[in-house]
Amino acid sequence: MTIAIDEDRLSETFAALANSTRRAILARLAQGAATVNELAEPFEMRLPAVSKHIKVLERAGLVVRGQRAQYRPCALDATPLEAVSTWAEQYRPVWETRFDRMDDYLTQLQGPRRAKRTR
Amino acid sequence: MTIAIDEDRLSETFAALANSTRRAILARLAQGAATVNELAEPFEMRLPAVSKHIKVLERAGLVVRGQRAQYRPCALDATPLEAVSTWAEQYRPVWETRFDRMDDYLTQLQGPRRAKRTR
Repeated sequence: MTIAIDEDRLSETFAALANSTRRAILARLAQGAATVNELAEPFEMRLPAVSKHIKVLERAGLVVRGQRAQYRPCALDATPLEAVSTWAEQYRPVWETRFDRMDDYLTQLQGPRRAKRTR
Repeated sequence: MTIAIDEDRLSETFAALANSTRRAILARLAQGAATVNELAEPFEMRLPAVSKHIKVLERAGLVVRGQRAQYRPCALDATPLEAVSTWAEQYRPVWETRFDRMDDYLTQLQGPRRAKRTR
């Protein structure tokens, strides 16, 4: 049951990250909290569009909003990104094997003793 | 320009990963190549549904198909997952700072000399 919930959470995180504007918002928030107005500035987007992106990030637990009157500054919560990293790192042996094979291949290509070897 | 292309690729990768069935297909393929029929078995899904998921993974560069007659086995290409890991790892200082603060907090709670400390 816990696994099912985590899977749903992970799906939600990945869906939230599947947009370059939302990733840029996270990069900005890694520098410190910001209001929606401050976040909207560099993106040349209307406030409602930025607000929509922030809501997606908030639902995914990547952004938390402050309670300060009308400003409600946004802050980054990187917890779900640790789950993303942990999930992706499972596959490190797979991508590293690929590189190892490429190394073997290059060694074969370059190795003088193997130059005459037939395939 | 390269950055823009990478951003698009990353968005496509995250979108492909935002589904637990597709992630389960990748986990299965990490054990070795498999045909669509073999992949469909554990999911109790109809072949067209599984094929659709595989097409999404293929477009995202996470799955490559063999050319062996009608079977066309699927294999995992973990390259895009390395990009996911690298992207998420940028935020490690953020989530680790959070844990450091939690450590400080726990130390304060548990430290006998600090027991009388006022907030």
